[in-house]
Amino acid sequence: MKRILITGASGFTGLHACHSFLRAGYEVIGVSRQSETSFPWIMEACDLLNQDQVHHVIKKYKPAYCLHLAGVNSVPVSWNQPLLTMESNLIGTLRLLEAMRFINPECRTLITGSALSGTNHPYALSKKFQQELCLAWAQFFQLPVLVAQPCNLIGPGLSSGFVSVLARKIVHQENQKKVEPIAVSHLNNAREFLDVRDAVTAYEILLNIGSAQSIYEIGSGRLSTLNEIAKKYQSLTEVKLSFFSSNQSPDKSPRLMNTKNIKELNWEPKISLSGSISDILSYYRSLKSM
Amino acid sequence: MKRILITGASGFTGLHACHSFLRAGYEVIGVSRQSETSFPWIMEACDLLNQDQVHHVIKKYKPAYCLHLAGVNSVPVSWNQPLLTMESNLIGTLRLLEAMRFINPECRTLITGSALSGTNHPYALSKKFQQELCLAWAQFFQLPVLVAQPCNLIGPGLSSGFVSVLARKIVHQENQKKVEPIAVSHLNNAREFLDVRDAVTAYEILLNIGSAQSIYEIGSGRLSTLNEIAKKYQSLTEVKLSFFSSNQSPDKSPRLMNTKNIKELNWEPKISLSGSISDILSYYRSLKSM
Repeated sequence: MKRILITGASGFTGLHACHSFLRAGYEVIGVSRQSETSFPWIMEACDLLNQDQVHHVIKKYKPAYCLHLAGVNSVPVSWNQPLLTMESNLIGTLRLLEAMRFINPECRTLITGSALSGTNHPYALSKKFQQELCLAWAQFFQLPVLVAQPCNLIGPGLSSGFVSVLARKIVHQENQKKVEPIAVSHLNNAREFLDVRDAVTAYEILLNIGSAQSIYEIGSGRLSTLNEIAKKYQSLTEVKLSFFSSNQSPDKSPRLMNTKNIKELNWEPKISLSGSISDILSYYRSLKSM
Repeated sequence: MKRILITGASGFTGLHACHSFLRAGYEVIGVSRQSETSFPWIMEACDLLNQDQVHHVIKKYKPAYCLHLAGVNSVPVSWNQPLLTMESNLIGTLRLLEAMRFINPECRTLITGSALSGTNHPYALSKKFQQELCLAWAQFFQLPVLVAQPCNLIGPGLSSGFVSVLARKIVHQENQKKVEPIAVSHLNNAREFLDVRDAVTAYEILLNIGSAQSIYEIGSGRLSTLNEIAKKYQSLTEVKLSFFSSNQSPDKSPRLMNTKNIKELNWEPKISLSGSISDILSYYRSLKSM
């Protein structure tokens, strides 16, 4: 039985990853800051900034695979706590890699970067450095480390992204039986969205057959405007969405991810944007208390 | 009286900087991991990785200027302790900038990068990220932070650089009255050397009139081979140096620093390579116990 350690296991992508690897027959060790017990896999409490805790958990499980999802992944949090963001995303990641190097050097480790990686804000900077740092570390110390760079991930589950927040607002209104319209603006801003479940499938492929010391961009191959997303929601609810065409000029469209490398490994996205949207709405409708 | 806080104050460049700013009429607060008392300036013990200690010292002195020299600055140490290198050079630096941001935001702070900045080894990577991080931080939070990027600094004082090590070996032999030849190889490797005292002069200019959020390269404008350095020593000692022309092809010559920006501020190096070499030898000769 293949054992995988997944950091950030109680986060949006982490929960999907734990479920998915479990279904695929892996022994899953989830790692999270708080210990939690309500999952059908082992959940270990571990602060990645604490060297003793990291070494302890790697020694205890010596996983064959590691999917590193932990870290600060919010732009607003990165503005409020920029140093914590750097520490979590850089030093936390390096603590993990160093523990692997000394205790478990054969472990194939996948680091998840971000399409936002750049210099626009502390989060972008932390992800840019994280990616560069991990590739350099892999080369310095000849470690089987890979980097995935996904676009915006959407899907059922608790997420603070726009697509989830809009669904939450809609379901809240549905439950309240109110007819206050929900304002949607920045309609022309375009983003590349991918269902988180498709991303997790890509991560599994990379952990198994990706090339070490390489970076793989992961995306759906198409940009969607916020207008398009909101219209898909509108077709699924009685709640009225009000579309505001603000005077703001749209964001510069981001470039599409270059998925050539991951596609060569026979990965392709399976879930359409409509499928994601519908599942997100169902997820929020299924929650008892909002 | 202008107050300056100098981190890494007991290091090679730090000691020169403390002396130099003291002579120039500044009130000097040296910061070092160990508290030391034998200096004609205040020396505060402070671990830059410890937030409480950093906040304490900034609150206590609220300096008008800060020269940040602390950090790991050895390539071999960076291979042995790569994570400590990243923590010291990135997180230590950010702790200082964050303390300034919250307690003393007007403080003009000069961060010293390195000509070695790049991806060749953990030290190079740490300095590359340090420079990028500081410039980004300065822009994110509108801080009067500047970055200096000096070439190899040489001069009297304890340094682990080649030029100092060779002088130490020569003086050791002079003291032992031995006539064992000292091997010098890699003769054709060229480096840009600058006297540390000229660098400190540049740092003072930058702290006073440099442009915030800018990077200034600092160098002598010429490359010198190790052969040239060794010959200058040979002309100053009776100890015999043996020149080995190893089969190794010379390193790729580094590019010269681009000193246009610092020269526009009327800085120029004053101490010749021969002057540095002679002072380094005198320094080691003046030490009682080797």
